[in-house]
Amino acid sequence: MLQDLFSPSVQHALDIAGIFVFAISGALLAVRKNFDVFGIAVLAEVTALGGGLFRDLVIGAVPPAAFTDLGYFLTPLLAALLVFFLHPVVERTQLAVNIFDAAGLGLFCVTGTTKAYDYGLGLTASATLGLATAVGGGVLRDIVANEVPSLVRWDRDLYAVPAIVGAAIVALCLRYDALNGFTTGLAIVTAFVLRLLAMRYHWRAPRAWNRRSSAAEDGA
Amino acid sequence: MLQDLFSPSVQHALDIAGIFVFAISGALLAVRKNFDVFGIAVLAEVTALGGGLFRDLVIGAVPPAAFTDLGYFLTPLLAALLVFFLHPVVERTQLAVNIFDAAGLGLFCVTGTTKAYDYGLGLTASATLGLATAVGGGVLRDIVANEVPSLVRWDRDLYAVPAIVGAAIVALCLRYDALNGFTTGLAIVTAFVLRLLAMRYHWRAPRAWNRRSSAAEDGA
Amino acid sequence: MLQDLFSPSVQHALDIAGIFVFAISGALLAVRKNFDVFGIAVLAEVTALGGGLFRDLVIGAVPPAAFTDLGYFLTPLLAALLVFFLHPVVERTQLAVNIFDAAGLGLFCVTGTTKAYDYGLGLTASATLGLATAVGGGVLRDIVANEVPSLVRWDRDLYAVPAIVGAAIVALCLRYDALNGFTTGLAIVTAFVLRLLAMRYHWRAPRAWNRRSSAAEDGA
Repeated sequence: MLQDLFSPSVQHALDIAGIFVFAISGALLAVRKNFDVFGIAVLAEVTALGGGLFRDLVIGAVPPAAFTDLGYFLTPLLAALLVFFLHPVVERTQLAVNIFDAAGLGLFCVTGTTKAYDYGLGLTASATLGLATAVGGGVLRDIVANEVPSLVRWDRDLYAVPAIVGAAIVALCLRYDALNGFTTGLAIVTAFVLRLLAMRYHWRAPRAWNRRSSAAEDGA
Repeated sequence: MLQDLFSPSVQHALDIAGIFVFAISGALLAVRKNFDVFGIAVLAEVTALGGGLFRDLVIGAVPPAAFTDLGYFLTPLLAALLVFFLHPVVERTQLAVNIFDAAGLGLFCVTGTTKAYDYGLGLTASATLGLATAVGGGVLRDIVANEVPSLVRWDRDLYAVPAIVGAAIVALCLRYDALNGFTTGLAIVTAFVLRLLAMRYHWRAPRAWNRRSSAAEDGA
Repeated sequence: MLQDLFSPSVQHALDIAGIFVFAISGALLAVRKNFDVFGIAVLAEVTALGGGLFRDLVIGAVPPAAFTDLGYFLTPLLAALLVFFLHPVVERTQLAVNIFDAAGLGLFCVTGTTKAYDYGLGLTASATLGLATAVGGGVLRDIVANEVPSLVRWDRDLYAVPAIVGAAIVALCLRYDALNGFTTGLAIVTAFVLRLLAMRYHWRAPRAWNRRSSAAEDGA
């Protein structure tokens, strides 16, 4: 379906770019956790490919793209090498990394939704898998690094909402047969811009109402 | 096979009830861990659907029921909303939640075993997958919440044994061609009552023999 | 393919041996973490079968071998029982356990690569899955036990490299059509010996260059 919108080569280049920036975020966490070079590579691969791997297993697209496209596998290794040698430079460019990560988020929620729909899932399930594609790698990254996933922490800027909005736009377009190059681009850009705004203005999601003690404020 | 025992609509209603109570337990843990509203929804979904998702991936039933039945997906969101607004009330009814959770445990170990057998697995493998269906969601819940799974902790009341007994009864009935409405109900009720008794009398599983130091008593 | 090299029964016996030693390592960690008897069994199963389960899901070999071969399932339970009753003895023989674990590592990286290739994956993807088969169980073990995976920790002796070398030898032999009993055995033994040497001489992988503070030395 996306083939009508983007040529396969453009689509592939965007995928590689998203994989690269997600891998950078995984590799940087590995450095902060003091992992060795293999830990850096493992966390880069897990972060970059975990979301798509989960999606492909659920829709039955085996072997998953992560294992059939050599570029998908080698890109995170390149990111890991880069961070291994140059992580002080990469960290100094944290803003750039965050912007690329937002772009990856926008791209993956859209392509994940489209791929799931192409495999015959319903609209809600497709949008859910699009969301899972976009955020799954980060959750796996945090689980392997033995941390509470940043996705579910109240003290982090909104991450799920931009992806939900992007996936929902695609699902609505699929519903009304209006998915084309323009609407696809619109969904990607909307998710991307929402994530940038969430970071800029520190938008956060509410925690449960009526939490009893203020002590909970300090909890993790 | 279960269609002969319960009508599909009864079966589906029981599934939804099991999913709902498991989701409540996930959402409550998310509130205790101070997650935001998305964390509450994520943990509700993971707890309610994780066990069945694992079973479906293993037996090759893709896309898994969690992604083809809209009710399966929306029920945990409803539970998450309920806990989000009313968690002090829900926590005060912890006993009721525990009773429903025990019912979900009994139901899932039985339906998980039956479904795996219907997909051609052996009796031992089917019972194992029934057990995994019943306890898998809780293990994933604790992994995402970055806690030691309550399933494997020595200081928690028996949880695996009731599910093992329920799954084993079903496997024995399948072996001797005696699975019918009565024996299925018996398996569910046996697992359910065993779990209630384990909670009432704080039955615990033994730890390894000859642990060397008493210091280990305090460990987690 | 391996059928030409080892008879199926030899191959199966080697698999069972590898599963047994991996299960021992899982069960020992469970005892150290103070888990109850079910926790010991769960961690033994996860460690022994997790890597192969992941490989089988990725290549679409469902139901996975872990659920179709009763010996694969019962062996970890035997290991768990042994550790449950005799863990002080087993711990005293830690050296023997480590040697067997190294043998399991060598075996699994080779059989994992071969099986993935037999299912039509490319050489790089096959070698990657061979590596994942060998180290995946240990990573899952540490995740369930709520620890930073020992695979990615800088203060542990090399574990990934021997498996990478073993898998790479197999991939090269497949590339040049030179996989036979001798080269397969050579790959297993090379990985095995490399792991033994890494333990003997405490070979470690480097951490990222230019880490800024010495404080990071103490971090986990």
